[in-house]
Amino acid sequence: MKKFLALLALLMFVSISAIAQQALWGVPTIISPEVHKDKTVTFRLNAPNADLVQVTGDFLPTEKIKTPFGEFDGPGYADLKKNDKGIWEYTTPSPLAPELYSYTFVVDSLKMTDPSNIYQIRDVASVTNIFIVPGERADLYSVNNVPHGTLSKIWYNSPSLGMNRRLTVYTPAGYEDSKESYPVFYLLHGMGGDENAWSELGRAAQILDNLIAQEKAKPMIVVMTNGNASQEAAPGETSAGLLPPTTQLPKTMDGSFETSFPEVVDFIDSHYRTIPQKSARAIAGLSMGGFHSLHISKEYPDMFDYVGLFSAAIMPNQGVQSPIYSDFEGKLKKQFDKKPALYWIAIGNKDFLYDANNQFRKILDSNNYPYEYFETGDGHIWKNWRIYLTEFIPKLFK
Amino acid sequence: MKKFLALLALLMFVSISAIAQQALWGVPTIISPEVHKDKTVTFRLNAPNADLVQVTGDFLPTEKIKTPFGEFDGPGYADLKKNDKGIWEYTTPSPLAPELYSYTFVVDSLKMTDPSNIYQIRDVASVTNIFIVPGERADLYSVNNVPHGTLSKIWYNSPSLGMNRRLTVYTPAGYEDSKESYPVFYLLHGMGGDENAWSELGRAAQILDNLIAQEKAKPMIVVMTNGNASQEAAPGETSAGLLPPTTQLPKTMDGSFETSFPEVVDFIDSHYRTIPQKSARAIAGLSMGGFHSLHISKEYPDMFDYVGLFSAAIMPNQGVQSPIYSDFEGKLKKQFDKKPALYWIAIGNKDFLYDANNQFRKILDSNNYPYEYFETGDGHIWKNWRIYLTEFIPKLFK
Repeated sequence: MKKFLALLALLMFVSISAIAQQALWGVPTIISPEVHKDKTVTFRLNAPNADLVQVTGDFLPTEKIKTPFGEFDGPGYADLKKNDKGIWEYTTPSPLAPELYSYTFVVDSLKMTDPSNIYQIRDVASVTNIFIVPGERADLYSVNNVPHGTLSKIWYNSPSLGMNRRLTVYTPAGYEDSKESYPVFYLLHGMGGDENAWSELGRAAQILDNLIAQEKAKPMIVVMTNGNASQEAAPGETSAGLLPPTTQLPKTMDGSFETSFPEVVDFIDSHYRTIPQKSARAIAGLSMGGFHSLHISKEYPDMFDYVGLFSAAIMPNQGVQSPIYSDFEGKLKKQFDKKPALYWIAIGNKDFLYDANNQFRKILDSNNYPYEYFETGDGHIWKNWRIYLTEFIPKLFK
Repeated sequence: MKKFLALLALLMFVSISAIAQQALWGVPTIISPEVHKDKTVTFRLNAPNADLVQVTGDFLPTEKIKTPFGEFDGPGYADLKKNDKGIWEYTTPSPLAPELYSYTFVVDSLKMTDPSNIYQIRDVASVTNIFIVPGERADLYSVNNVPHGTLSKIWYNSPSLGMNRRLTVYTPAGYEDSKESYPVFYLLHGMGGDENAWSELGRAAQILDNLIAQEKAKPMIVVMTNGNASQEAAPGETSAGLLPPTTQLPKTMDGSFETSFPEVVDFIDSHYRTIPQKSARAIAGLSMGGFHSLHISKEYPDMFDYVGLFSAAIMPNQGVQSPIYSDFEGKLKKQFDKKPALYWIAIGNKDFLYDANNQFRKILDSNNYPYEYFETGDGHIWKNWRIYLTEFIPKLFK
C-alpha cells in the first residue's frame, strides 16, 4: 500500500492538470466580455490573422436592416482594434444601462460566438453570447443570494394533440417543504420559441426567485408551455433528433394549441399542489404567446383571472377556420362580463404590432372593457418581454 | 370590428416573417452538419472571405498534442474545400461509427462553433457543437419515442458547506403518477464539471429513459451532484454572476464534498419517494467523481450497495489531511467486509489513470475484494463515460 501511495504521489504532479484535459478544447486565456465597475464593457478576441473584427449586439445603437419585408431596426456594429499580441479589443465609449445583452463577433464578415464566453443562449435558430450589466431592473435577471425555486422539464400527455409534450415548470423555493397550495401562472413563448424560451432569454426563474424574495410577488408555480402544437418539445428534445429549428412550423396559430390548453391545466392541477380556481390562475405570453393568451382566456372565460398580452400578435390567422377564432366579439364580451381581475396589455412603441394593439385597445375602450396598458420604448425584443414579466408578476394573485 | 379585421388581414403578409424576427440574428441557410443515411457526415460553413477552414473533433483520428505536461492524444483536423458560392464543405471519407461527437471549426486559425448548428454543449470552459451518428449504443444517447422522465434543477441546504447547493435530479417516467418508492443512483462529475455535466455531455436522462423503456434498467431516481465543495452551483447559476469557469476551484478533492455527502442523501430521502436503504442506493462518478465515489462509499460503508468508478482519479490529494483519506486500507476492509452488491471499475486502456487503476485493482485482488472490471479503448473522454453509464445502470438494484 505504501508503494502504491508513493506511485500515486508521483502521479499527482501531472494529474490535476491532466484531469482538466477532459475538456479537450483548452481553456480561454483572455477575459471577454469584461464588465467594468463603471459599467463600460470590454470585448476581446484573440485573432492574430484576422483583418477586421467587429462586435454586434443589442448594446449598440440600432441600425436599419433592409429585408424583403421592409426595413427593421437591427443591432449595430463596432470595430475592435488589434494590439501587438494579436488580441482585438473594443471598450464601449460610455457605461451601458443595466440590462441583459446579446452579442456576437463578426470576423472578416463571418459571424461567430465569443470563444471566451461560455454564456450562450439559443433564440430560435441562432446562438448568441450574453452578458449582464448589473443594477436596477437587471438585478432581477441575475442569480442573487436568495432562495431558489426548482426548475423542471416534465412531460404531459395531450390526447387532443396525440402526443406527449414537454413543459418547463418553476416551483417556488419552499414548495417541496410545505403543504401549501399555490396559484399558477401559465407563461407562453413566441413564434420560433418553445418551452425553453422563457427560462433562458426570458430569465423567468431568476425574475421569480428575486421578486418572491423581495416580497413583491406571491410564491407561485409558473408553467412554460410549448405552443407549437405540431411539436412534442424544443428542438433536440424529441425523437426527430438534432435537426435545425425552423420558424415555419405547422399548427402554431390554427387553434390547435388553444383547444388543447385545458389538458395542460388539468395536468398541472393533478400533479402539483395548486389552487385550482380562476382567481389563482394567470396566463400571459409574448407575441404569438400573447395571441394564444388572448384566445385561450376568452375561450375558457372561467379559467384565468389574470391575462397578460406582451407585444401580442393580435391578428386573425391566415385562412384558418378554427372554432377558437369564431365569434370574437361575443366571446370577448363573455370574458369581460365575468370581470377578470386583470387584463394587461404591454407593447413597445416601435413594435410592428403597435398599431394592431392600438386597434385592439380601441375595441376594449369602445366596449368599456377595463384593462391596464403599459407602453415602453423599443420594438419586438426580449428586453421588453423581460420588463413586462417583471411588471406583470407583482400584480398577480393579490 | 370588421374594419379592424381588415386592417389585420393586411398586416398579415408581413407579420409572420416579422414575428420570427424576434431572432434578431437571422436563420442559417445551410445545413451543417448533415448526417447522411450511410453515416458519412458533411460539414459546411459559409465563409467566402476565409483562406483556410478546418474542422476538428473527436470523429477524426487523434493527433498528438504537446503540452507542458507531456504529449496527449487530441482531436485531429480536416480541411474543408470552398465551392464557387463561398461555401466550404467537408464530407468524411467513410461512415462514422455510431456515437455522439463534438467538433468545432477552425477558420484561419481561429476556433469557432458552427453557426448552422444550434446544438452546443459546454465542457468545462469551452463550448463545442455536437452531433449524433445513430445506431447501436448511440441510440441510447438519442431522444426516442419512449416515456420521458422529469429532469429538475433543485437546491438543497448543506450546513457543513454553509450554503444552498444545486442538484440535477432525474425522476423516471411515471414517478409523478405512482405511489411507489424508488432506488436512487448518485452520479458524480469530474474536475471542471458540475451538476450539469452528466445531463448534458453525459446524456444521462436519455440513457435512463431508453434503458428503462427497454426494461434493461429498473426505474430509478438519479441525483447528479455538484462535487466542487466551494461552489453553490454551475457557473452562471450563482450570485457570482456570469464569470468564466475555472478548473482551479478550491475544495474539490480535500474531503469537504465527501464529508458533506450524507446531507445530499438525507435531502433526497426526505424530498423524494426513495427506498432509503443501502440495497437501493448506488454511487458512481467519472474521474474526480470516481475519486469521490471511492472515498464516500468507504467512508459510509452502510450507505451504498453499488459503487462505480469510471476512469477514477485514484490518488491521494496533495498535502490534504482530511480524515476522509485516513486509514485507507482499514476503511476499504470495512467496506468489503460488508459485501457491497457491486464494485465496478471501468477505464480506457489509453487513460493516463490506467496504471493507477491497475495498482488499485492489485490492492483489491491481493485482499480478495471482489469487483467487476470493464476495459475499453481510448482515454479520458466522454465517449467512455457514456459507455460506462450504459453498462453500469443495467447492473443496479437487481
